[in-house]
Amino acid sequence: MAATSVRQVNIAIIGLGGVGKCFLSQLEQLAARRPSPKLVVTYICTSKKALYSTDHVAIDFRDLPSTLAASPHAPLPLPKLADFLGTSGSKTVLVDNTSSQDVADAYPLFLGRGISIVTPNKKAFSGPYKLWQDIFAAAAQSGAKVYHESSVGAGLPVISTLKDLVDTGDEVTKIEGVFSGTMSFLFNSFAPASGSGGGRWSAEVKKAKELGYTEPDPRDDLNGLDVARKLTILARLAGLPVESPTSFPVQSLIPKELESAASGDEFLEKLPAFDAQMEETKAEAEREGKVVRFVGSIDVATKQVRVGLEKFDLSHPIAALKGSDNIISFYTKRYGSNPLIIQGAGAGGDVTAMGVTSDLLKVLSQIA
Amino acid sequence: MAATSVRQVNIAIIGLGGVGKCFLSQLEQLAARRPSPKLVVTYICTSKKALYSTDHVAIDFRDLPSTLAASPHAPLPLPKLADFLGTSGSKTVLVDNTSSQDVADAYPLFLGRGISIVTPNKKAFSGPYKLWQDIFAAAAQSGAKVYHESSVGAGLPVISTLKDLVDTGDEVTKIEGVFSGTMSFLFNSFAPASGSGGGRWSAEVKKAKELGYTEPDPRDDLNGLDVARKLTILARLAGLPVESPTSFPVQSLIPKELESAASGDEFLEKLPAFDAQMEETKAEAEREGKVVRFVGSIDVATKQVRVGLEKFDLSHPIAALKGSDNIISFYTKRYGSNPLIIQGAGAGGDVTAMGVTSDLLKVLSQIA
Repeated sequence: MAATSVRQVNIAIIGLGGVGKCFLSQLEQLAARRPSPKLVVTYICTSKKALYSTDHVAIDFRDLPSTLAASPHAPLPLPKLADFLGTSGSKTVLVDNTSSQDVADAYPLFLGRGISIVTPNKKAFSGPYKLWQDIFAAAAQSGAKVYHESSVGAGLPVISTLKDLVDTGDEVTKIEGVFSGTMSFLFNSFAPASGSGGGRWSAEVKKAKELGYTEPDPRDDLNGLDVARKLTILARLAGLPVESPTSFPVQSLIPKELESAASGDEFLEKLPAFDAQMEETKAEAEREGKVVRFVGSIDVATKQVRVGLEKFDLSHPIAALKGSDNIISFYTKRYGSNPLIIQGAGAGGDVTAMGVTSDLLKVLSQIA
Repeated sequence: MAATSVRQVNIAIIGLGGVGKCFLSQLEQLAARRPSPKLVVTYICTSKKALYSTDHVAIDFRDLPSTLAASPHAPLPLPKLADFLGTSGSKTVLVDNTSSQDVADAYPLFLGRGISIVTPNKKAFSGPYKLWQDIFAAAAQSGAKVYHESSVGAGLPVISTLKDLVDTGDEVTKIEGVFSGTMSFLFNSFAPASGSGGGRWSAEVKKAKELGYTEPDPRDDLNGLDVARKLTILARLAGLPVESPTSFPVQSLIPKELESAASGDEFLEKLPAFDAQMEETKAEAEREGKVVRFVGSIDVATKQVRVGLEKFDLSHPIAALKGSDNIISFYTKRYGSNPLIIQGAGAGGDVTAMGVTSDLLKVLSQIA
């Protein structure tokens, strides 16, 4: 099968937020650079509108936002979308750029119809273990592919590296790291390894929000669930059948009294009253010559997964992290005492979309 | 195409040294874990002996060393091997676990016959630029695959990450790192970031040799050519048509007077007389609050590739490296001011073989 013959692969895209827009731009460049396989976007939707034609004609990207806004179509219900894509006569890849649980729940349906999936959506792989099993069973049965590099560490090669370690027979003993850009930024500012600087905790949270490093309601970062979801995914890939992201200890940085605050703004307003506690945690670490960081760890042998605050020596790579970078250390039998480490930006539209695009390339190399 | 159907892929293996033995062990485990595709080793050879049968029957691995020693066959000349493998009727992957230039020179021949290649052999990708072009032209023409992850950083995901960056349209601006386990060990011992310790240069070289961290003749590490070969590969992948590993500045750590020493032992005997020079280099760095390291760097914009000694702040990740670890930093447009960093063991039979095995898995996913 010569690589020069032109084959066609259809692409369906759900979600046009920050990651979706970056992905679309990368996809356009990709299609321009690579004539084969011919990539034809036959379906694209936001939560409100969709573009498609019953005869699967390629969608014109020019003026996409306004064309979409003017479209008479609502998004197809997911079972109908599976029918639509499954009957096109071409190999098809669904790109899910949402963080929707509903879309995630439908992955087995799509995969069962032979539709491959690439996505940064964590929900499918960190939800109930049953969904995880259904997804990979459906893919194995139909031969469709499912890739989700950007579900952990955005475009950093975290999932692919862990898969390579496991698939080649290495024994992963421990995974440890900083898995949240928000948490990384917060603690690198609040308790810098250089010792100097670092404002009050509540002020750092407020600053992070203003700079766009947090979710609209910062509690969605501070509850630790985002990190717990990523740990769930990695633990499962390492062979632990973790039931859900709430089935292991996750430390929330939201004071109990503020869990019920009506809004993110109210939360931020009341947070300063609780600064003393974080200040004490920081001071305790300093007395030991350490810094405090919000990390996740998986001990494969003891099957222990945990997410929360830990203290690190100043010479530890986790203490030396900068900005909003992620760092992930894989301890394995083959790598011995020094782990295999991957480090860099773990959030942002462009690098997240990059993980999705490189997943798409991997799928194309196998199905086209 | 259901993933449960059993297809067959033939494997030919050249080289049974340290990496080759580890690869064989990983391959056996792989074949035991994965029933599909069925992996059949039809040819295996060292530099002296070969095992194969004209009807392409699977080779029995039991007692392989003694079976090989007892074999009446010399290795097939490479054109004959290409004929043998090309006429088996099955998809075939050639695993080159040698560092032979002759085998490397024959890659276009194998690829042209539709035989895929996985290898840690640097020679093919760091030799004359013409060979590089011939290899990828032959692969593009026939559709055969060629993967060489372990040619840089052993099993670390260096090549695959750089390819993903480039293929998804990121702009790599600079690549910098420690690419030699030997050099890493030497300088982490000679000029530790902790400041204390560090023996005389010649004593460190002698120790590294005794611990098995150097080539039999340490000059084969100290001449910088191994690092230059790796930089050539990365520069080409980043888009620079580097002509050869000698077409850019490479600093050799062999004193001029010892280049002509008759043996590695004579070199080691005479090296102490030249300790003052390295001692001064180390002291100069210390006066600036830095440490000296042997690094390679590629500046893509100015097309400058260089290999040699550089000074690094103690807080720099390169200064903090441990043991014989490699570290590779990718600076790109998308990743901004903080690079994407990959770090860990960059040498050793098991981790090198792991890169070969994971390459094999990637090829299988595409051809089987």
